[in-house]
Order: sequence, then C-alpha cells, then structure tokens
Amino acid sequence: MSIDAVYQNIQEDLDKVETEIQAVVEVDFPFQAELLRYCLQEGGKRIRPILTLLAGKLFDYDPAAILPMAAAIELMHTATLVHDDAIDHSSVRRGRTTVNILWGEEIAILLGDYLFARAGEFATDTGNLHVVRLFTQTLRTISGGEINQAHNAFNLNQTRQQYIDRIAGKTASLFILSTESGAILGRAGQEDVEALREYGYHLGIAFQIVDDILDFTSTEEEMGKPIGADLAQGTLTLPAMLILERHPEDNPVKRIFESGGGQDDIQQAIELVRSSTIVQECYAIASEYASQACRHLEGLSDRVGRQRLVEIADYVVARKK
Amino acid sequence: MSIDAVYQNIQEDLDKVETEIQAVVEVDFPFQAELLRYCLQEGGKRIRPILTLLAGKLFDYDPAAILPMAAAIELMHTATLVHDDAIDHSSVRRGRTTVNILWGEEIAILLGDYLFARAGEFATDTGNLHVVRLFTQTLRTISGGEINQAHNAFNLNQTRQQYIDRIAGKTASLFILSTESGAILGRAGQEDVEALREYGYHLGIAFQIVDDILDFTSTEEEMGKPIGADLAQGTLTLPAMLILERHPEDNPVKRIFESGGGQDDIQQAIELVRSSTIVQECYAIASEYASQACRHLEGLSDRVGRQRLVEIADYVVARKK
Repeated sequence: MSIDAVYQNIQEDLDKVETEIQAVVEVDFPFQAELLRYCLQEGGKRIRPILTLLAGKLFDYDPAAILPMAAAIELMHTATLVHDDAIDHSSVRRGRTTVNILWGEEIAILLGDYLFARAGEFATDTGNLHVVRLFTQTLRTISGGEINQAHNAFNLNQTRQQYIDRIAGKTASLFILSTESGAILGRAGQEDVEALREYGYHLGIAFQIVDDILDFTSTEEEMGKPIGADLAQGTLTLPAMLILERHPEDNPVKRIFESGGGQDDIQQAIELVRSSTIVQECYAIASEYASQACRHLEGLSDRVGRQRLVEIADYVVARKK
Repeated sequence: MSIDAVYQNIQEDLDKVETEIQAVVEVDFPFQAELLRYCLQEGGKRIRPILTLLAGKLFDYDPAAILPMAAAIELMHTATLVHDDAIDHSSVRRGRTTVNILWGEEIAILLGDYLFARAGEFATDTGNLHVVRLFTQTLRTISGGEINQAHNAFNLNQTRQQYIDRIAGKTASLFILSTESGAILGRAGQEDVEALREYGYHLGIAFQIVDDILDFTSTEEEMGKPIGADLAQGTLTLPAMLILERHPEDNPVKRIFESGGGQDDIQQAIELVRSSTIVQECYAIASEYASQACRHLEGLSDRVGRQRLVEIADYVVARKK
C-alpha cells in the first residue's frame, strides 16, 4: 500500500512545503549548506506535514499559516533524527550514511540545534503564538521522552503502560502537534481541535508500534537502516516485551539486556518474533490504536476530508517501511 | 570588580527570574529533575538576564513580559553550554563535573534539547511573537557560528575579521537578543531598539575577547574550567592570533594546530602571552568594543539607566572570571 493515492489534493501544497524546506539550504556558508543539503534530501515519508495539511483542509484552510507550520514540523522531525542518530551512534538512515558518521557527533549536535532553530522560525511564520507554544511544548515532550528512554535502556522491568507512555512522548507528541496545529490554524472549534488531538495521539502510537514491529520483521534494504537496532540499543519495545512474557525463563532479550548479548541473540530474538504470533498480536494492538484514532473523527462534518485521514491510518498500519 | 553594585535596583526581579528558572526543575520524572537541578544550579553570572532587565527598565517596563524573556535567555545560554561541553568533551564547568562526563554525551544532547524547548516556552510566555522570532533566529545564529568554529578547528589561516564574525555568531548574538528584546518588550522606538542592538553586539564581542584572554591568563580555580582549552580544541582566538603574528617562523600555536602538539606547547603558548604585551593589546581591543557599546547609548534619555549599562560594560572588561 502506498500513501500516494491519499494526498492527491494536497500534492501542490506539499510541493510548496518541500520548496520551503529546501530553501533552508540556501545559506552563505558552503559547509553549512553542504550539511543542510545532505540531511534535507528528499526520501522521508513526509507523513507529518501531510497530516498538518489534511487537518488544515478540514477547516478554514489558510496556506499562509499552514504551509510554514508543516515545514516547521518536518524540520523538527529531521532535527530529532539527526540527534537520535548521534545518540545511538547509528551509521545508516534512509539508506544513507548518517551525519554523525560522515562529519562526527559534534557536527551532528550543532546541525540538530540549527534545524530546531529553523523549525522554530517557520513556526513563528504562522503568526500564531498558540501553535508556537505547542511547538516548544512538543519539543520538550519529545526530549523528555528520549531522556526517559535512555534512562530505561537495558531495563527489563517495564510495563506495557510505560512503553505506551514512552512512545507517546517520543513519537505521538509530534503527530499530535501535526494534526492539532492544522486544526488550530484552520480556526476549528474546541471540540474539533480535541478530536484532531486524539486522532494524532492514537495514530502516533500506532505508527510507533508498527515501527517497532518492522525493526523485527523488515529488512535493512527496505527500512534504510539496520534491523534489530532497538534490541542492540537496549530499547524495550512491544515485540520484545511479548518475547519476555512468553519465554519467562530464558530468552535472547533477557540475555541482551542482562549481559550485552551478541549478534546471535539479536538474530534469535528476530526469529522468535517472526516464527510466532507475536507479529500478529502487535499488529492487532497497532490496528486498535489506528481504529481509535479514526473513531475520534466521527463528529467532523467534512466527510471527504475525514476519509483521507482514515486512509492515512490504514497506511500507517499497512506500511512496509 | 564585582557586578553586585550594578544591579541593585533589579535584584528583586532577578530573584524572580531565578525562581522561574528553578521551577523548571519541578517535573514528574525523578531522573529528569536530577539532571535539571544539576545544570540549573546557581553559579553562573546571569549577565544576560541582567542585561534584559536593565534594557527593559530604560523604557516601558513590563515585568510580565520581561521576566520570562530573561529566563528564556538564561536557559538558552545554559542549553548551549551543555551542548558545547558535550562537543568539546569538557570535563569541568563552573567548577563542577560536566553533564556529559557524569551522565554521558547522549544525555547531554537530550538535556540541551530539553532546555532549548523550555527556553522557547518561556519566550512564548512574553506573548510577543516578534521576540520569539528573534529568539529562534538567535539560536540559528549561535549554532551556525558553532558549526563554522568546528569547521575551522585547527585552521591557522583565519583573519581577525573572521575571528570577530565567529564570536559575533557564537556569543554576541545572545547579548544582542538580551538587550534588544528588553527594548522591544519595553515598546522602545526603532532608534532606541537599534541602539540597544548595537550596545549588545559590541558588548558581546568585548565579553568574548576577554573570555579568550582569560583562557590564557586566569587559573582553573578562578575560571571553574581548565585554562588553555581553546588551543587544545583548535579554536584560534585573538591572543593566539597575536602569537602567530609576532612569531611567524615557529611558535607553539603553529605546532599545536599543525601536529596536535602537547601540554608543553600549550604551556609555552600561555607563557608567551603572559610575558608579552599581547594581553594588553587584546584588552585594548576589548575595551574599544566596550567603549563603542557605550557610545551607542548616548541618545537614550534615561541617564541613570544608561549609566548602569555603562557599568556593565566596565565589568565585562574588568572581570577576572
């Protein structure tokens, strides 16, 4: 399933968002331009700006505010990826060598800061202080969530609720910003803004659960980054939690978390997930979140626009990368 | 010389800013609270928020906007220090072990991001989109300046103008934000805003030149961080440039930049600066910037308030840490 069909009527505006993002590369310093060009290359799914545009289209659509907000959100996302890769010492992202490997972690830190700044500037281009405030709060939530994740690395004693709270912070928060800001900038009523918030939250949770599944079931070629990375970094995701529940005595997740483990253990964990019903169980949970996301849209008057958001939810669960 | 006498009439508001900053520590997650408490401990000079308050007092002083802006600026400064220490692998700051050493570079990256976010939230508390925009642009300027500095590490071929441009980006920009935002939030006229901008720029340049001198002439005890750190990191500062100019054939700076050098070379460079007129020459340049800063204040009607900013300029040049 492709996302292409979903956003036909926003293609033109999405191109404009892309143009705004690419304009970030135009700076006086050649080295800065090289870094920006590299990390802003197309290749991402751009799902967050798509959500902002679609949410905006449900209401009083104002491109002068919506387009910079969509650019702000995509740049914030890119900034977090640059920092995440530096933190995880990752070497491949979207099929390309990471900034931290090519130019060092020092440059990755500064480039991420630079992108946060540019993202913030785009947010102020909306002229709407309310969404700028949500933007800064979201960055706080994301980095707080990442701090909690780092603090809980290689900790086996985490509940499913803690897992959901963690991915809510690090992932769903930006989905919430994407949909909520679209609604606010479209001058939606309080009830509709709340509906879009809830949609964004549940969609974001579904998105991250699928990401966590794909880290076991996909291939490096498809994902553009190594498989099994979460385990290697000591991040306890839903599929790994199910391994722990089903094999309480001894299992590869326990070995990796308790004594570092090795590539063999990661491979064994991947096999355990793939050869069991863990994949289906995780997808069922992700689908339930996606369904809940869509249920929150039921009160919206724009049926066609609503349908597009439902299709995005379908895509989020069905996607293979 | 102490800064204490300078800001007697802002002490109460400065305490309120401190209270706002300390409230950042109150979060639900004990680990986050521990990190925040550690890096927000008092001990900084708080010169930037002082500038914002003093600039604001020159005009239509509105504490509801000025106080959060002062907090925003101090938090942005703290965030940049946390990231700088991670980038430089520094182990001591303000006499205390750095975040990157205590909790790792990963946590330092995330904590800096968190602080940028909180700083941005404080900026939005002003209710003034114009200063929020300046805030984001300043963060861009700082991180761009730091990228340029990293790119030019161990590069001997830098002009004095490039040095000034570099410290304008990484240091003076935040001084400009401090004074300009105070003026804007005080609803100063365009000419007065421009005067405060110019004051901030020249003061910031003087401040950084003195910082660069102290890296040669002070002690680790006084500075709360190692001496000679700029040379070790390959950052070409004004005193090092004067060594290069005066000893074009062979000198310790050249050795450090061309082949890494060692502690001996750093010690020799420190001695060369201390035993020559390089210190005086650098102070003369810093003083000239401080004087220029003050000259830009001459058109301001509030003579008493203006005098306080002159005293700050005196302090910036005379300070020993």
